[in-house]
Amino acid sequence: MRFNPKRWARAATRCAAALLACAAIAPAVAHQVDTNAPLTLKDEGSFFVGGRDLASDTLSTLPQADPNGTVTVEQMYVQYQIPAHAKAPSLVLIHGCCLTGATWETTPDGRMGWAQYFARSGYPVYVIDQAGRGRSAANAVSIGGVRSGRLPPDALPAGFFVGREFAWTLFRFGPKYPQAYPGMQFPLEAQQQFWKQMVPDWAYSMGTPNPTVPSLGQLAARLKKTVLVSHSQSGIYPFQTLASGASGVAAIVAVEPTACPAATGDVSVYTRVPVLLLYGDFIAQSAWAPRYAACRSFADAVNQAGGHVDVVSTTDLGMHGNTHMMMQDRNNLEIADFITGWVGRNVH
Amino acid sequence: MRFNPKRWARAATRCAAALLACAAIAPAVAHQVDTNAPLTLKDEGSFFVGGRDLASDTLSTLPQADPNGTVTVEQMYVQYQIPAHAKAPSLVLIHGCCLTGATWETTPDGRMGWAQYFARSGYPVYVIDQAGRGRSAANAVSIGGVRSGRLPPDALPAGFFVGREFAWTLFRFGPKYPQAYPGMQFPLEAQQQFWKQMVPDWAYSMGTPNPTVPSLGQLAARLKKTVLVSHSQSGIYPFQTLASGASGVAAIVAVEPTACPAATGDVSVYTRVPVLLLYGDFIAQSAWAPRYAACRSFADAVNQAGGHVDVVSTTDLGMHGNTHMMMQDRNNLEIADFITGWVGRNVH
Repeated sequence: MRFNPKRWARAATRCAAALLACAAIAPAVAHQVDTNAPLTLKDEGSFFVGGRDLASDTLSTLPQADPNGTVTVEQMYVQYQIPAHAKAPSLVLIHGCCLTGATWETTPDGRMGWAQYFARSGYPVYVIDQAGRGRSAANAVSIGGVRSGRLPPDALPAGFFVGREFAWTLFRFGPKYPQAYPGMQFPLEAQQQFWKQMVPDWAYSMGTPNPTVPSLGQLAARLKKTVLVSHSQSGIYPFQTLASGASGVAAIVAVEPTACPAATGDVSVYTRVPVLLLYGDFIAQSAWAPRYAACRSFADAVNQAGGHVDVVSTTDLGMHGNTHMMMQDRNNLEIADFITGWVGRNVH
Repeated sequence: MRFNPKRWARAATRCAAALLACAAIAPAVAHQVDTNAPLTLKDEGSFFVGGRDLASDTLSTLPQADPNGTVTVEQMYVQYQIPAHAKAPSLVLIHGCCLTGATWETTPDGRMGWAQYFARSGYPVYVIDQAGRGRSAANAVSIGGVRSGRLPPDALPAGFFVGREFAWTLFRFGPKYPQAYPGMQFPLEAQQQFWKQMVPDWAYSMGTPNPTVPSLGQLAARLKKTVLVSHSQSGIYPFQTLASGASGVAAIVAVEPTACPAATGDVSVYTRVPVLLLYGDFIAQSAWAPRYAACRSFADAVNQAGGHVDVVSTTDLGMHGNTHMMMQDRNNLEIADFITGWVGRNVH
């Protein structure tokens, strides 16, 4: 067949339109980082930020240890990895309710988590355990006090120790345990591994702001240029950190925050850095609908005040079935690619 | 000067003797691994082993969560790194009393810990948090029960929450807080970071054997050929794991175990794998003297039964001033080199 320029131009236009349409609706299927290559690090390790000394006479209730002494409580554990050829900014990963930094590691079904993937993407990664949880010591002084009869039972901290039946709905695996939403992307076949990630959460007994907030401020000042990436219950922390005047916060990425700052009043402090509020699927029919609406109002207020808040749902990106635990969903690395793309475009 | 063969031979003999003498007493000053090169990993991540489901009606004492539900308790968190060119065996690092897996990471004064150093030495490294501590969930059911008045105060777990004054002597920084032993090698200038590593320890309320023991058995079976490296309070766990019939245990390295199995009775099960019991300095004048003597007797009994237990003090290696926290002492990497050398010679 002879080459026909007009016919070719028409076909090319149709082809380009089809490609554009596909790009707009298709999920990203190729990761931007080779997950099979070796992970090459300049350094890794851990340290603690914050904390306060506490003298007590109800430390131990065992005969082999002294009940008297000084412990440190409310410190924040930070585990970090610096890639061999690191770029700025760094990312601080802040887990949510009833969980620890394990949130960002291997997924329950054994796939790569965001912590390693972000390091492979070239970012220094700092994974924290919130004060009082995981490798950040819980304050057990009142337990010894109550057990030894020196304090009343209501001196014990109020715990948020969440059963899987409650978590199921909260994390939007489905409308009610054990029913799953159709097309839901959390790897339910490995749910036993996920339940083992859950720990007792004393955050609601630790005052406001949570001691994790000033520790995040210290960490950000030390890192100089960092993105605070929160999840769920920790969603308010980066905003509180920013409002406290901490230096070094380059942006905030809030994955399904439980709360945002109030949309009324002075929101000017939140105009200082770009903000991404990221949501999954099934929001409308869940307890997250009013939280989403409140954060949407906050975003509108900050944007009207000259700030830059993007509110994005994974469904806007052509992805479907994402849960509250999207960092562990089957398409977790595609969502990670979206986040690093957003950081690349917005943090300079 | 003319070459004189006899004179040369005499000088060479003197020189060789001097070198041998130096080698026998001098601490190893050069590390066997380049700590400045990039750390190149094939993979890293985490998973959980063991645990049991527990239904409770005293989970949460907060209005926003259901007190009823099912949680998982007694699981063991495992964080691993596989070097790009890994060799066998793997090493499982098991922290001691009142601490978590952070024990093996960066030292309090910011130097490289054993976990990274062993990975750089080519070994797959598995760092665990004992059941009930760190990222391994504590069982908080009784706290909710007592706080809500449904259980008596003595239903609370007996905690081993150790103050720094007690820990100071236990860890042999000195005879009594805040006096240090002369020449002591722990980086006391960074002690605040170390106190922040300490967490409440519920191990003594968890029954015998501790749930960590069967989990170590599962882990060893999965790893097929691994060295269980214990510290202090966890010292008895690898022996209990071996005695339980677990497969995959290639050797045991016990860093200052609090207890060894009894020297009397049948010790034949402990003849199956090579064992290293490793001690620091200042043992004689400390609470570790009777523990050392008991483990020495155990070693003698196993060796008489045809086993292979090496009892080594860092002072035997020409090192001085080592504490109970020798993995964080100033010469920690020289001790690590001794351990990898011992593993190389004894695990085939």
